[in-house]
Amino acid sequence: MKRHKFLLTEDQIPEHYYNVIPDLPEPPAPPLHPATREPVGPDALEPLFPPGLIEQEASDQGEIPIPEPVREAYALYRPTPLIRAHRFEQALGTPAHIYYKAEGVSPAGSHKVNTALAQAYYNHQAGVTRVITETGAGQWGSALAFARNLFPLDLEVFMVKVSYEQKPYRRSLVQTYGAQITPSPSGDTAAGRAVLEAEPDSPGSLGIAIAEAVEVAANDPKARYALGSVLNHVLLHQTIIGQEARAQMQLAGEQPDVVIGCHGGGSNFAGIAFPFLRDRAAGAKEVRLLACEPRSCPTLTEGEFRYDFGDSVGLTPLLKMYTLGHDFVPPAIHAGGLRYHGAAPLVSHLKALGLVEAAAFSQRDCFESALRFARCEGIVPAPESSHAVHGAVLEAARAREEGRERVILFNLSGHGHFDMAAYDGHLAGS
Amino acid sequence: MKRHKFLLTEDQIPEHYYNVIPDLPEPPAPPLHPATREPVGPDALEPLFPPGLIEQEASDQGEIPIPEPVREAYALYRPTPLIRAHRFEQALGTPAHIYYKAEGVSPAGSHKVNTALAQAYYNHQAGVTRVITETGAGQWGSALAFARNLFPLDLEVFMVKVSYEQKPYRRSLVQTYGAQITPSPSGDTAAGRAVLEAEPDSPGSLGIAIAEAVEVAANDPKARYALGSVLNHVLLHQTIIGQEARAQMQLAGEQPDVVIGCHGGGSNFAGIAFPFLRDRAAGAKEVRLLACEPRSCPTLTEGEFRYDFGDSVGLTPLLKMYTLGHDFVPPAIHAGGLRYHGAAPLVSHLKALGLVEAAAFSQRDCFESALRFARCEGIVPAPESSHAVHGAVLEAARAREEGRERVILFNLSGHGHFDMAAYDGHLAGS
Repeated sequence: MKRHKFLLTEDQIPEHYYNVIPDLPEPPAPPLHPATREPVGPDALEPLFPPGLIEQEASDQGEIPIPEPVREAYALYRPTPLIRAHRFEQALGTPAHIYYKAEGVSPAGSHKVNTALAQAYYNHQAGVTRVITETGAGQWGSALAFARNLFPLDLEVFMVKVSYEQKPYRRSLVQTYGAQITPSPSGDTAAGRAVLEAEPDSPGSLGIAIAEAVEVAANDPKARYALGSVLNHVLLHQTIIGQEARAQMQLAGEQPDVVIGCHGGGSNFAGIAFPFLRDRAAGAKEVRLLACEPRSCPTLTEGEFRYDFGDSVGLTPLLKMYTLGHDFVPPAIHAGGLRYHGAAPLVSHLKALGLVEAAAFSQRDCFESALRFARCEGIVPAPESSHAVHGAVLEAARAREEGRERVILFNLSGHGHFDMAAYDGHLAGS
Repeated sequence: MKRHKFLLTEDQIPEHYYNVIPDLPEPPAPPLHPATREPVGPDALEPLFPPGLIEQEASDQGEIPIPEPVREAYALYRPTPLIRAHRFEQALGTPAHIYYKAEGVSPAGSHKVNTALAQAYYNHQAGVTRVITETGAGQWGSALAFARNLFPLDLEVFMVKVSYEQKPYRRSLVQTYGAQITPSPSGDTAAGRAVLEAEPDSPGSLGIAIAEAVEVAANDPKARYALGSVLNHVLLHQTIIGQEARAQMQLAGEQPDVVIGCHGGGSNFAGIAFPFLRDRAAGAKEVRLLACEPRSCPTLTEGEFRYDFGDSVGLTPLLKMYTLGHDFVPPAIHAGGLRYHGAAPLVSHLKALGLVEAAAFSQRDCFESALRFARCEGIVPAPESSHAVHGAVLEAARAREEGRERVILFNLSGHGHFDMAAYDGHLAGS
């Protein structure tokens, strides 16, 4: 029997997060204060994040230990399987070997739980009792809603109103896990009220939801804010994906030629890709790292690499990143988790250094590849993850044209069980 | 670190289905022809099922080999994890050890895929090109819709109209996997048209959907019908669950005192429970087998053990089983998969022999237990599976009262990602 799954045991859950910074030829540019344009020190983040996360945000240590309670929480669903997609390879008629890391097995169904557990832990440990966040498509909000049960915290989630209404079951999941959820813009904050006054039917946006969450957190000294992507500490937590995948590829006796992730804020891509830079640093076969983004929000492929705000209203420090401009409003695509005007500063830096490639795909092509994948492998990909699936399909086609084996690894960052309306839309249109 | 998951490798996927019949003190009563009341021979089933399944239906062999292509298909998601619910135990304050078998990791999210793959294989192998089935809550329809991609078949699913409308995303999943789906009653069959004439707004029922599926299958010599529970061959396929669980409990170094499954038609319960009878047959510690059903459809706890029809309109052979009467119409509960008037003849026989216990629970209690479970363990149980969760909660409470360790194993037959409206309903009411 062909081997499909490459599994690790719980004691092989990584003991460290991998910080790519010391392995880079030069460090990334620091965040700047918008008024002074001076680098922002850790103290500026204190009203928003607990000390453990601020320390990680600015760390230059290569390996940062994972606290044992977090590892034990990971053991609920990690190590996640690495799966060889034999049937998908066959359907694509490719000589390529395709492997995927199945992060959708997590409680909330995506990689977001990896950072949610760490963030809940550090907040709880610091005596924080209340955390506020925002969520777009709902993967992040539901992940943190689960994590707060293991490291007790009250959680309030502002969910972009259009998603709140179009994805009622992500909202249900947040509530099932016991967190509070409010459609944004809301009447609960000055930021929300201002929007509602100007536009009572506003569908909301991630920028508005961030503004609401930050406002609530800033007004309660016992509360903190939490972010599900973009920042260094979030990317760091996701590196457990790539560390496991490296060990699993060794079990499979192969080394990837290309490692692929979908790209919105950057955390799942960084999570699977960065640890493979260690091999390159160690002189092994050169591995390509490919970030796949939606053509309608082409941050890495068409954005400019410059300082810009992380949010749409200009509250955050300036971050050096590929950006479409903080006032860019991406169209309402199904992959709501990829609708972000900027890219993580760390991914941007690696792209500028030539260590990361990027490609942009149409929504239609991604769904077509996701359908083929689902019918072969069983898992229905989240619309976000379908970009990584499509990236793998194109690499597999290239291998077929070149008539050579190529080892492809992609991150299936989440399942699409709460996104079936998006599949309905695609099936109706095709 | 406490160990959470007990995993097997792919080569440990069972090589045989376990047939409990030879281990029983007496065989179950045969199905009877409704007119002659004579036992029905295998030939009567030929218009409906392929030879491989008919043979299994009547087999008295203790072990029936699993064809290698089916084992290889199982390798996509099997062996499924056995998980020790440490956090749930702690939340319940029980000295009991609680283990659950996570069948929701399958492509369509429930144990139904185990029999869907086998049924697709035997149909495909027999040259059948078209299969017709019905589905209530949608777990079975979506499982077969996936399986037909691996063993190519055209598939048409009649879905009970009220579920088709209330669970649009189960319908989407069937379509995503590439099968056809029709709300029942439909205008496609004489049976459907008769219902629609009498009651144009009929919400449908499993009985009507069966009648439609059987009619279409019977009218096409190349087509066959497929059933997702109740029959011997379906229960047989599910015994891979219990065989894996036995091996995994050995890894954990424990033997269960009680094995629990939810009970509708009987297949997931039989699947986890029957293989443990081998231990009893071999003189090991006596293990209790507990079937948990909804109080509103209390087949095993309040039904009569007698011959009755398998469907609601009287088309099938007479089956000896616990039944509420084939014209019993269960109320519209959220656990649509447990709304069946009868119990599998084989589970019924074991119940009559005193080898199986049964208990009936309220929907509200089951959801409360499911919520507690989800917040500890992450997985949101299907409403059906929540009956097994609640059974485990009661056993754990008894262990606490008695102050003794008790080893509890239950089957988490599926996740509730497509049932979040049911959780909404529960949360709104509580």
